[in-house]
Amino acid sequence: MTAPSEPARNEDGIATTVAILRQRLGERLQSGRSIREQHGHTTTWLPNQMPDAVAFPDSADEVADIVRACADHRVPVIAFGTGTSLEGQVNAPSGGISIDLSRMNRVLDVHAADLDCTVQPGVTRKQLNDHLRDTGLFFPIDPGADASLGGMAATRASGTNAVRYGTMKDNVLALEAVMADGTRIRTGTRARKSSAGYDLTRLFVGSEGTLGIITELTLKLQGIPEAMSSARCSFPSVGAACDAVIAAIQSSLPMARIELLDALQVRAVNAYSKLALPETPLLLLEFHGTEASVAEQAALFGEIAAEAGGTGFEWTTRPEDRTRLWQARHDAYWAALQLRPGARGISTDVCVPISRLADCVTAARARIDALGLIAPMVGHVGDGNFHVLPLIDMDNPAEIAKAEDFVGWLNELALSMGGTCTGEHGIGQGKRPYLRAELGPAVGVMARIKAALDPDGILNPGKIFT
Amino acid sequence: MTAPSEPARNEDGIATTVAILRQRLGERLQSGRSIREQHGHTTTWLPNQMPDAVAFPDSADEVADIVRACADHRVPVIAFGTGTSLEGQVNAPSGGISIDLSRMNRVLDVHAADLDCTVQPGVTRKQLNDHLRDTGLFFPIDPGADASLGGMAATRASGTNAVRYGTMKDNVLALEAVMADGTRIRTGTRARKSSAGYDLTRLFVGSEGTLGIITELTLKLQGIPEAMSSARCSFPSVGAACDAVIAAIQSSLPMARIELLDALQVRAVNAYSKLALPETPLLLLEFHGTEASVAEQAALFGEIAAEAGGTGFEWTTRPEDRTRLWQARHDAYWAALQLRPGARGISTDVCVPISRLADCVTAARARIDALGLIAPMVGHVGDGNFHVLPLIDMDNPAEIAKAEDFVGWLNELALSMGGTCTGEHGIGQGKRPYLRAELGPAVGVMARIKAALDPDGILNPGKIFT
Repeated sequence: MTAPSEPARNEDGIATTVAILRQRLGERLQSGRSIREQHGHTTTWLPNQMPDAVAFPDSADEVADIVRACADHRVPVIAFGTGTSLEGQVNAPSGGISIDLSRMNRVLDVHAADLDCTVQPGVTRKQLNDHLRDTGLFFPIDPGADASLGGMAATRASGTNAVRYGTMKDNVLALEAVMADGTRIRTGTRARKSSAGYDLTRLFVGSEGTLGIITELTLKLQGIPEAMSSARCSFPSVGAACDAVIAAIQSSLPMARIELLDALQVRAVNAYSKLALPETPLLLLEFHGTEASVAEQAALFGEIAAEAGGTGFEWTTRPEDRTRLWQARHDAYWAALQLRPGARGISTDVCVPISRLADCVTAARARIDALGLIAPMVGHVGDGNFHVLPLIDMDNPAEIAKAEDFVGWLNELALSMGGTCTGEHGIGQGKRPYLRAELGPAVGVMARIKAALDPDGILNPGKIFT
Repeated sequence: MTAPSEPARNEDGIATTVAILRQRLGERLQSGRSIREQHGHTTTWLPNQMPDAVAFPDSADEVADIVRACADHRVPVIAFGTGTSLEGQVNAPSGGISIDLSRMNRVLDVHAADLDCTVQPGVTRKQLNDHLRDTGLFFPIDPGADASLGGMAATRASGTNAVRYGTMKDNVLALEAVMADGTRIRTGTRARKSSAGYDLTRLFVGSEGTLGIITELTLKLQGIPEAMSSARCSFPSVGAACDAVIAAIQSSLPMARIELLDALQVRAVNAYSKLALPETPLLLLEFHGTEASVAEQAALFGEIAAEAGGTGFEWTTRPEDRTRLWQARHDAYWAALQLRPGARGISTDVCVPISRLADCVTAARARIDALGLIAPMVGHVGDGNFHVLPLIDMDNPAEIAKAEDFVGWLNELALSMGGTCTGEHGIGQGKRPYLRAELGPAVGVMARIKAALDPDGILNPGKIFT
């Protein structure tokens, strides 16, 4: 897949800016090929497009300095967290400077009574949760990868427990950012809610580095639940599993996680994790609450699942059993890759109203099979969000073309069902055509905001907009 | 209080536009004085600033027509829901056309399986909940007044159960709006989550009619809980009450409402509602869940409250007892007014991190007493948000000046505590100076977005920005 053509490289500006930044940052400005390649896109089929240099700032002031130097010479600036985004968000199609925020990795403040904390953008979610270990609090958003919190905010990440705790948009109270001209802003306070002016926090969350560089985040935290229970249940069809989920949501069952694995994914998990789960659609659940309430929740779900045709319902609050159950889910990606060793997994996601999820997943399975692709599916089914992972031989152009065809078809299907072209991966480079198909003239409004805040288009060019 | 000076009226443009709209809309364009006055600000001490005419469109197409006519002649357009905003949001400081959306009051769709619905902006929250009565679903946001859902979105309203269900920003999935040039956009789909481009939904929620006119909303719904319990508990001090709230939140107790009434407000409620509550700070709570879980939640809160020094803890699931308890809270405003018959209640709100709430409320009480004002307080204490209601003799300029002084002081105090100048009332005209104090250069970013989307400044001029 070739990325659409991008503005030509500004060779003179880039050379000048690299020289200036090298002078200022010394060893913290790197331009070796391998480090540059590592800061281009590495996760899927999009071509790697390297920046010209990678800067490693230590502070927001330094970020502002770097952005100003780039602004002076109209050189692209691409923010980089851990490089785990999935739609080419960190590529540098016109070259420029990658700002790697990994050195800005301090937890600045934890306010336990207020259930909030303030962190630098390079702190990863695991690092934050390690830091919180003794406070009785945790940060719930878990997109799978140990991504940086700045990157998770920039792509509006979510993951397995969004059904209970929301996505990054719901968990960032405020942020600081460096704008395209190097000015610094703070978008909010530590108050839990506010109606003071435009919601710039939410505007920055999901803006993929195209409006400013996030240099600090104030995040909501949660109390670690007194008890957690996990459950699993197999279903004769994806439709039956979705019926159970819908019934559970309608009865206000406060599920913390509810994950669907399709039959192929269960087969992969069985092989990889040495399990013997029935190779039919599987739901994995987690409940958070008091001892009594998680028991009650699990029991209620068991009744709902049975009515929908579920079998083999099991639940447990024993940590080792919970871990075993969820380890299989956490390893789903690696398990899937083992279905076809040597192939690359091309993760794509869509999100539809939950009433359409069964139809969407079922149609996707039929299309995958008709195209002769191998592609397991997992779903954050409480949100109607699911991932398909075509396993592709990257040396086979015909196969890549089939996978591209499938992704295009799947996006159109999701839109026709009232859904979105991405629940949590973002637009980046890969989903740009579908954004226009999804939102039409609203994309023009986004472009006007982008032009107003970054008139020279230096911030992460070639992303979101075609 | 005089509003800051505003751009001069565009007399010719207004006359031409009124004539054009009268031609098009006939009786649905009104310019009688009383209807115009009713569409200016009526709720507090800000002067009423009438529009020149009030249009009553029947459709989004008509809204677009009206906006285009205004754009052609650079005439202000002010969206109007039910007129219950509290900071002058519907005033017309430079005249212009008020668009009253009350005729656009249809519930367009309810998708029970997806827990969402689509409504026109003039539907009020009670009307929606009446419509939903037989579905087992409800829309949770309750700002007190029976406001229109379009207006609630425009001011980012919340209310008593935001602690559990969030604010309007959390409950609008997508919306349609007419932009300043009359183009129509849709900001999202019915998917529960999305990372497709900038979050225009959240940008419009809270934009107070300054970026576009909301013509349709897709809202999240909730399943009506199987059981609800209510509880009350008195405390020796605001500090003790806040300690109980913090402990309850830290232990993840899923409270649906937790409301603080200060001692003066309790005295008012006792008199008005013929109750005999101890005239000390009072917490009122509500829990939603299963029969077993609401009982467990109430019991847990009882233990937490006792540890914090609470007394007289009582809880009930009997609907008539719950109603009696909450009726007192619902009547708090009317009860307060009876503390000083003939006075006007000037509601103001701030929101601080919950660890500072007790200090903030206590300092506010001291300041109120020192100024010789009468002003009860109520708080959505789970969010750190509280309201002060100075009861003012509007014929006494010295007293008005004292109240203004108090409001300014309270906002500065909230900001100094890491809070916001408004938790749920919005900026409108009244809070403009504090917005700048709160967010500084970020207000410049808001202004650039405003200028990009409404270059002639016709949408609700004189609001949010000074």
